[in-house]
Amino acid sequence: MREVNALNYEDFIQRFGSVLEHGTLAAASVWSSRPFPDAFALHGAFKAFLSSSLSAQAREGVVRCYPDLAGRLTEEQRLTGESLREHKAAGLLELTDEEKAELGVLNSHYKEKFSFPFVICARENKKQAIMSGMRTRLQNSRSEELENALTEISKIAKHRIDELVTEKEVSLTPAKM
Amino acid sequence: MREVNALNYEDFIQRFGSVLEHGTLAAASVWSSRPFPDAFALHGAFKAFLSSSLSAQAREGVVRCYPDLAGRLTEEQRLTGESLREHKAAGLLELTDEEKAELGVLNSHYKEKFSFPFVICARENKKQAIMSGMRTRLQNSRSEELENALTEISKIAKHRIDELVTEKEVSLTPAKM
Repeated sequence: MREVNALNYEDFIQRFGSVLEHGTLAAASVWSSRPFPDAFALHGAFKAFLSSSLSAQAREGVVRCYPDLAGRLTEEQRLTGESLREHKAAGLLELTDEEKAELGVLNSHYKEKFSFPFVICARENKKQAIMSGMRTRLQNSRSEELENALTEISKIAKHRIDELVTEKEVSLTPAKM
Repeated sequence: MREVNALNYEDFIQRFGSVLEHGTLAAASVWSSRPFPDAFALHGAFKAFLSSSLSAQAREGVVRCYPDLAGRLTEEQRLTGESLREHKAAGLLELTDEEKAELGVLNSHYKEKFSFPFVICARENKKQAIMSGMRTRLQNSRSEELENALTEISKIAKHRIDELVTEKEVSLTPAKM
């Protein structure tokens, strides 16, 4: 972690700008909270950014930075590297035509109701769980779904940080010493 | 402006995501405030994002999303399209070796003192004014410079919106009718 704490802000932003999707501003803000004793604390700083640094409207904006699952950006091969890997892990790149159509309808309904996309941590769910989760969450209120989306975004961020901070340096659990 | 107001959030973010540098989150947040009667109101929504939607730490983050003037990203040809055009307009792509060196030293001093880069609306300044402005602003306090940077970012945003909303639709002064 010493190496991470030694980065100047430009290099920090370049490295951690993808912890949130299109998250340059998030990383640029989080840098102010260094030094980070461990990756757990770094993740905490991103969580604090989500919970305490943004108005409700800006938090909605954070959610809108995420792509539709297996949506237009996937079709057009314009997913970010991180989203592409997450889609792959959940089996979302190998949908049948039927599944694609079903997910497309669910995406549309969700966005129409909430004005932001359905976000779920694809690394912790497979495609069937994702689709059933989407049907369930469609029943929620807008404020419940904003909270759910931000919780999922935080889980996604944890996995992304895990990949960006080498295991040798630190694990994602708090240091015991 | 009718066409802008009719955009879904994904298309809106794609079009206006560069109004602030690396400003996907800003555009995604501003979308909630539509419809915009004119480009003046659209610019007002970005100003409101800067002034009311972000903690002080996140506002610093906004400033850190801007490149050093004629700095590393310029050398490495990694400026965004908008920043490149702005550098060109101010004559910052045709610096002598001496000017580059001087600007490099000023950039370093500024970043060391404030922990964010010197931001100035290059479309409203030429290189000599930029360098003398930098020497003057180096004397300010951190909070003064954070305010100055955000004022310049708002001016830059105005010019960028001007280019993104066609003149035929609307001018950047409030509608008289």
